[in-house]
Amino acid sequence: MSTRQKRYFLTEEEIPTQWYNIQADMVNKPLPPINPATHQPLKPEDLFPVFAEELCRQELDQKNAWIDIPEPVREMYKYYRSTPLVRAYGLEEALGTPAHIYFKNESVSPVGSHKLNSALAQAYYCKQQGVTNVTTETGAGQWGAALSYAARVFGLEAAVYQVKISYEQKPYRRSIMQTYGAQVTASPSMSTRAGKDILTKDPNNQGSLGTAISEAIELAINTPNCKYTLGSVLSHVTLHQTIIGLEAEKQMAKAGEYPDIVIACFGGGSNFGGVSFPFMRHNILHGKHTRFIAAEPASCPKLTRGVFQYDFGDVAGYTPLLPMYTLGHNFMPANIHAGGLRYHGAGVIVSQLLKDHLMEAVDIKQLESFQAGVLFAKAEGIIPAPESSHAIAATVREALKCKETGEAKVILFNLSGHGLIDMSAYDQYLAGNLTNYEVTDEDVQKNIAGLEKII
Amino acid sequence: MSTRQKRYFLTEEEIPTQWYNIQADMVNKPLPPINPATHQPLKPEDLFPVFAEELCRQELDQKNAWIDIPEPVREMYKYYRSTPLVRAYGLEEALGTPAHIYFKNESVSPVGSHKLNSALAQAYYCKQQGVTNVTTETGAGQWGAALSYAARVFGLEAAVYQVKISYEQKPYRRSIMQTYGAQVTASPSMSTRAGKDILTKDPNNQGSLGTAISEAIELAINTPNCKYTLGSVLSHVTLHQTIIGLEAEKQMAKAGEYPDIVIACFGGGSNFGGVSFPFMRHNILHGKHTRFIAAEPASCPKLTRGVFQYDFGDVAGYTPLLPMYTLGHNFMPANIHAGGLRYHGAGVIVSQLLKDHLMEAVDIKQLESFQAGVLFAKAEGIIPAPESSHAIAATVREALKCKETGEAKVILFNLSGHGLIDMSAYDQYLAGNLTNYEVTDEDVQKNIAGLEKII
Repeated sequence: MSTRQKRYFLTEEEIPTQWYNIQADMVNKPLPPINPATHQPLKPEDLFPVFAEELCRQELDQKNAWIDIPEPVREMYKYYRSTPLVRAYGLEEALGTPAHIYFKNESVSPVGSHKLNSALAQAYYCKQQGVTNVTTETGAGQWGAALSYAARVFGLEAAVYQVKISYEQKPYRRSIMQTYGAQVTASPSMSTRAGKDILTKDPNNQGSLGTAISEAIELAINTPNCKYTLGSVLSHVTLHQTIIGLEAEKQMAKAGEYPDIVIACFGGGSNFGGVSFPFMRHNILHGKHTRFIAAEPASCPKLTRGVFQYDFGDVAGYTPLLPMYTLGHNFMPANIHAGGLRYHGAGVIVSQLLKDHLMEAVDIKQLESFQAGVLFAKAEGIIPAPESSHAIAATVREALKCKETGEAKVILFNLSGHGLIDMSAYDQYLAGNLTNYEVTDEDVQKNIAGLEKII
Repeated sequence: MSTRQKRYFLTEEEIPTQWYNIQADMVNKPLPPINPATHQPLKPEDLFPVFAEELCRQELDQKNAWIDIPEPVREMYKYYRSTPLVRAYGLEEALGTPAHIYFKNESVSPVGSHKLNSALAQAYYCKQQGVTNVTTETGAGQWGAALSYAARVFGLEAAVYQVKISYEQKPYRRSIMQTYGAQVTASPSMSTRAGKDILTKDPNNQGSLGTAISEAIELAINTPNCKYTLGSVLSHVTLHQTIIGLEAEKQMAKAGEYPDIVIACFGGGSNFGGVSFPFMRHNILHGKHTRFIAAEPASCPKLTRGVFQYDFGDVAGYTPLLPMYTLGHNFMPANIHAGGLRYHGAGVIVSQLLKDHLMEAVDIKQLESFQAGVLFAKAEGIIPAPESSHAIAATVREALKCKETGEAKVILFNLSGHGLIDMSAYDQYLAGNLTNYEVTDEDVQKNIAGLEKII
């Protein structure tokens, strides 16, 4: 072992003061979301009943490349940001690769993942507008925990619908939300029309993110002074997550490097966009040639096998119609442990970027993701979230290619969260009790064809 | 909210290069450990069969105030150190106190606690000496996780005896150890004489730290090329933990402050000594008047109710006789959730310091500790380990005194670890299902009197 710098930080003054809105720089803008009632392109006002107004404006902003981070949000960022940029010497040595591997460690956030970056912003804008209550959905609970704490910070009451199977199988994340003072309900529940409709037909329904979204939106719309918040997919969420990549850009400069490849796991796209877009900006504007790889689960492969069309973001059809790569809004993904990646669609920005070949996508099977996660835990000491392990698996693939070719490529991946609440999944993996799930092109075509033609 | 600095870091160059050995500066040195066979003061060589030789020398070193941190250990420190020194504005505001509260956040270590600071050192010295296997015991699993990872780093095989009740009730920490590649056995087990003796008498025995220590020592002594390691109590463990206080000293200087009060929770004393001794040095040598408060559980009150006498460190009597505050080596503490504080004795250094009134101790009941932990989680976002919540509770007491007197005292406490693996305990607290346990002076006198007179 030699003395060589392991981690790169920013001073509090160096923490970015603006988020980056890639929509402004895209040559082909994302297609507009559509109001399903009127079939007209969505205006910010159409979203006001559901989201804080500033968030609605951010969602559809295709003009302003830089959005000021409100001072109270930036002040809260300082409690855990900058997150470390780490040179993964341990992983490089374990793989015997000449690649230089870096990861941005978002797992050091107090709630254990990148989700807090947007939760603080969303809670702040709600508070600023006089909102008193916020709702949301959560799967494994990373987003729900973040929103629960952010609501506490800005003095809001939070109600979280958690997918029932997670509510029951991952009680620790539920406890975390409750410790922060949130009200947590298993979804589907009898507290909403959307939930009742499902439970009366199927009393043992285990829930899905799409259903929990429907319930949370319904509660927000029917409660005075209450807004809904979302943890991924939407453009304003990804906007807030660009703090990750903007920091990483400055930190990599301190390391004297620039990434040849940027990798993140992919659920709805916010952690992927968050780490990628600030670097993609230089591809678009300054002729850089960085590759961007989204790592999605083979069991929920909207980017690699989905179709690009208008679809709803939730099961009940409460959301606008979004132009996206989708497996169909009623797609029920297999019960993999990377709960945060079990979503049928991709955000509109990423969908357009993929269509235009500005990024790539790979699918990772469950066993490969856990193999990479255990390798990383042994090499770097940090137990990664099952979601983040997809990014690690894609990184391992690229690093091994470098080993074959002898190229010392610079790879940056986002460690979106830790896996300490997911140890039962590791248990099952180590005991040989996990399996792979795959979706074929035929599965997808059948599912999409089964939907009514929406638009 | 105003712009004000929240966190203080050191550069990798500023990370201390030496640990601080307070024994060299103590006016009244700790009494010597005694070889129970010969009743003679222990020499380092007496410990060689059990521990790595360098650790034995450190254990009994009363001369050298500064011990070089081996370069490979310091290189590993850089992956997570310096840990942040955080100004707890959120907690100050929640309490309405004029006190300036700082905490050293050891929970950001990859294994979630300060324990890694010594695990890396112990594994390194073993490796250097040609050892191939290490053993240890663990209660809740913080130490076991740290040693498992440190063993992996230096290419050693680790065998961990985990107290049976924790093995069964906290499966996540067992899984973490197994993910790092350690072999984990519930204690008492049939794999040692010490374990067999207990199980044949009491097949349902739930285990204790004292028993697990006996088993781990027995395995180490009977296995070629194998050494035992310990997570607290001993002087060399506390030596390694002084990295905490040495960093904090530099970080507080960056904040332009010096602590009036330093607080840590107390199990065997390593995290308390680690954060305290570098500041206590200035009390001893430079006329400073900082107060040092050890926060122990009311259910295991060796400092506040124990007696100062020679006692064994384990149940079976395999260890040397140690001059310490003790509840008796067969004391069975109530099953509180702060498993890391359930130990009958205090380290020899701390015992002497307490006897000489260079430090103070307070006892905290379980409900007060959880009340403080939830308050801290809501105010600072970090869910503390039940152990660390004892330090928070003592901090809250002092901060509220400041509120009464109007004094802006500077309080530093050590957040020794996070509580993400302990959420079931939070669940029970929030549901009102936890209770207090107390030990009376009479309980202690009776327990001590029941022991054979050892020396």
